[in-house]
Amino acid sequence: MQTALDYLKHNQRRFVAELCDYLRFPSVSAQAPHKPDLLACADWLANHCQKIGLTAEVCPTAGHPIVVARTPRTPGARRPHYLVYGHYDVQPPEPFELWKSPPFEPRLEGRELFSRGSADNKGQHLAHLKAVEACLRTGTELPCDLTFVIEGEEEVGSQNLTPFLKAHRAALQCDGVVISDTGMPRKDLPALTCGLRGIVAFEIVLHGPARDLHSGIFGGAVDNPAMALAQLLAQMRGPDGRVTVPGFYDGVVPFSVLERKQFARLPLKEAELKKLLGVPKLFGERGFTATEQRGARPTFEINGLTSGYQGEGSKTIIPSWARAKITCRLVPDQKPERIRKLVIQHLKKLCPPSVRLEIEAGHGAEAYLLDPTSAPAQAALRALKTAFGHEPVLLREGGSIPIVNDFKRILGADSLLLGLALPDCDAHSPNEKFDLDCFAKGQRMSVCLWQELAAI
Amino acid sequence: MQTALDYLKHNQRRFVAELCDYLRFPSVSAQAPHKPDLLACADWLANHCQKIGLTAEVCPTAGHPIVVARTPRTPGARRPHYLVYGHYDVQPPEPFELWKSPPFEPRLEGRELFSRGSADNKGQHLAHLKAVEACLRTGTELPCDLTFVIEGEEEVGSQNLTPFLKAHRAALQCDGVVISDTGMPRKDLPALTCGLRGIVAFEIVLHGPARDLHSGIFGGAVDNPAMALAQLLAQMRGPDGRVTVPGFYDGVVPFSVLERKQFARLPLKEAELKKLLGVPKLFGERGFTATEQRGARPTFEINGLTSGYQGEGSKTIIPSWARAKITCRLVPDQKPERIRKLVIQHLKKLCPPSVRLEIEAGHGAEAYLLDPTSAPAQAALRALKTAFGHEPVLLREGGSIPIVNDFKRILGADSLLLGLALPDCDAHSPNEKFDLDCFAKGQRMSVCLWQELAAI
Repeated sequence: MQTALDYLKHNQRRFVAELCDYLRFPSVSAQAPHKPDLLACADWLANHCQKIGLTAEVCPTAGHPIVVARTPRTPGARRPHYLVYGHYDVQPPEPFELWKSPPFEPRLEGRELFSRGSADNKGQHLAHLKAVEACLRTGTELPCDLTFVIEGEEEVGSQNLTPFLKAHRAALQCDGVVISDTGMPRKDLPALTCGLRGIVAFEIVLHGPARDLHSGIFGGAVDNPAMALAQLLAQMRGPDGRVTVPGFYDGVVPFSVLERKQFARLPLKEAELKKLLGVPKLFGERGFTATEQRGARPTFEINGLTSGYQGEGSKTIIPSWARAKITCRLVPDQKPERIRKLVIQHLKKLCPPSVRLEIEAGHGAEAYLLDPTSAPAQAALRALKTAFGHEPVLLREGGSIPIVNDFKRILGADSLLLGLALPDCDAHSPNEKFDLDCFAKGQRMSVCLWQELAAI
Repeated sequence: MQTALDYLKHNQRRFVAELCDYLRFPSVSAQAPHKPDLLACADWLANHCQKIGLTAEVCPTAGHPIVVARTPRTPGARRPHYLVYGHYDVQPPEPFELWKSPPFEPRLEGRELFSRGSADNKGQHLAHLKAVEACLRTGTELPCDLTFVIEGEEEVGSQNLTPFLKAHRAALQCDGVVISDTGMPRKDLPALTCGLRGIVAFEIVLHGPARDLHSGIFGGAVDNPAMALAQLLAQMRGPDGRVTVPGFYDGVVPFSVLERKQFARLPLKEAELKKLLGVPKLFGERGFTATEQRGARPTFEINGLTSGYQGEGSKTIIPSWARAKITCRLVPDQKPERIRKLVIQHLKKLCPPSVRLEIEAGHGAEAYLLDPTSAPAQAALRALKTAFGHEPVLLREGGSIPIVNDFKRILGADSLLLGLALPDCDAHSPNEKFDLDCFAKGQRMSVCLWQELAAI
């Protein structure tokens, strides 16, 4: 393995140049005029995979193609098979005027490589490809069979990935999925993300009078839908920050001692978080730290409110209707369908007869939790420690990554989320950057990872 | 007086023709291209006043002119002086396509005269002018000195009326103001409106994070301003429909037995109101009928809500801020300034430290109440009964007419609100109409009114 690590060491300059080539494709999946750029980018990637010794193909989909690349298989050998997932599409670069250098002309400043897509996600999955190259070129045995699945629609919802996974279920059957598309808290804190929150979305509308009414002529004798909505929503969260929907917390898996210890290791303190967000005071569920609250506790959030007159000045009306957009973040083992049912039940029970309640159910996704004491998780932690030279931390992140659920549902595979992006990487923002130390250590981690995973 | 009433009777056809001439001016004050039409309309009105024996002038203002016309004064005589207020400007006629005939080409159908401005307000104040004409032409003594003040900006806020009243305070000093610009509930229910609600407006904004936040990454550790707003507003009204701001009802004048009797006489029943408004169920302050609630009880209304994402679908954010537009309708003796202070105090007290409260105070107007047992009110009721042949009803209307407060504040004069428009007159809507029986009886009422008022 040392020869492979040495190979990595001696080829960093070239790897960075290759990453820059990859980053020059403006592969903006959300913008139709960039379709040829996505195709060219996919071709470049497939060629690059072939060049370093993988078989690779560009698989068309109803949208942008998926690049699939395989390490050489030894006929007859029964070795562990892992999927490496990534995406070659990037977020739109707008607003251009906030970029210090053009988003698709990579610029190196110290150890930071600035470019759209550098952290999210080209740099991160290229690290895994460079690890494979190192093994193949140095004759280091790659003890796992790997299949890279690099899609071009992650930033627009991965709509064609699910049918692709279903269509190639047999070939993609695997022992696990490795994804480097999340973050690590600090350069000296490599991380395994072992939890993600789920989500369930609603839209509720309270209907009152058939049209906006003159509040002078009718006000007082008819309920105000905006007030009824305020009173309805107000009852969904208690002063202790807990969601008051009966049964909402049933089955929520409590934190283990290990998890709480890991949360406590994270560097962002509450005073810093308060300052970062610009709030007068933090607020959350009593009995939990801010890190726990935002990473691994369920929520009931209002994402939007609309009712009546919104223009300048005053308009003396009773609005005909009032609407709220709502999402609940979920944690294991809150099933989206059960929570949806409980919330709807509660809203219906509390809604006064003076207004009519309309509920539109939105999307839902299950929370994800990988047991950090499981063998693959432990293997990943060992690889992180070896590569970074620091004790890794376990993360639970508050967002949702729906593809993780797809891998579980369709392929029955757990995902190891081994993010290489630092908190200030500005993914989705102007001046996105990727740290080259993370790039290099990510390659080392990948070489170690397959050894560790093969040994479990 | 009978000769004057006979004169009215014999000249109705001509009066209607004159009203049609008046209505043909598209005197839309809100639309700049109609400025010449407003001037022409004011000239026509002043000429018409002169033709029937008044002195009249078109007084320029910073906006559209005010027509002032006086009945002939007897030198040295000390007679009661009343102002008759009206407005020659009209609401915009749009949408044109909903009119059955062009809005400025008056059309008679049965006893209904269709035209923009017929009920609001040309027909109503012309009735008073025709009463004066009848007295002057028949040599019937007009026992009061009258000054007509007919403005051209009522539909756009009467901004130039206040300075005009102040500038001519001495000449306009009077014993009372007569305004026919409200309604009567039914042809056989002539009405004196002796109460109007006041108003006080606010806008409140709750500020949370410095920008919209990703609800996955931060949700749970930071308050949601939309939820905080819902919880704040929810506490402003109890389940009994009462406003919960401490001190809100202090000094509210309770209904007299007479008032409750008058409310009970009004024809619109609760089942009809519910159907008219299209609500699942009426809702209001416990212990009061719907008529009382909407006519003469104070309210706390949300006129608009704005927060976060309002577009299609879902956006998983914690909004940076949430805003509510609020108006309270007030009744005697709730002073707008005191209520404003109480509400602000209460909001500040209830606002949690996790958000920052910003309050913007809007306009305010006092409620108006004329003692229905006062001599002028009784005189007006007698005039209504004589002219219409039916027992008049006392109304308290839920809206606010700010000029009534101006007359009180600047001239120290009470207003007699003697509306001649029926509930289906469609003022402000397409196919506005004025009932010619109300027109004729309004003229008779006016002749009687000056006799009655002179006798008190």
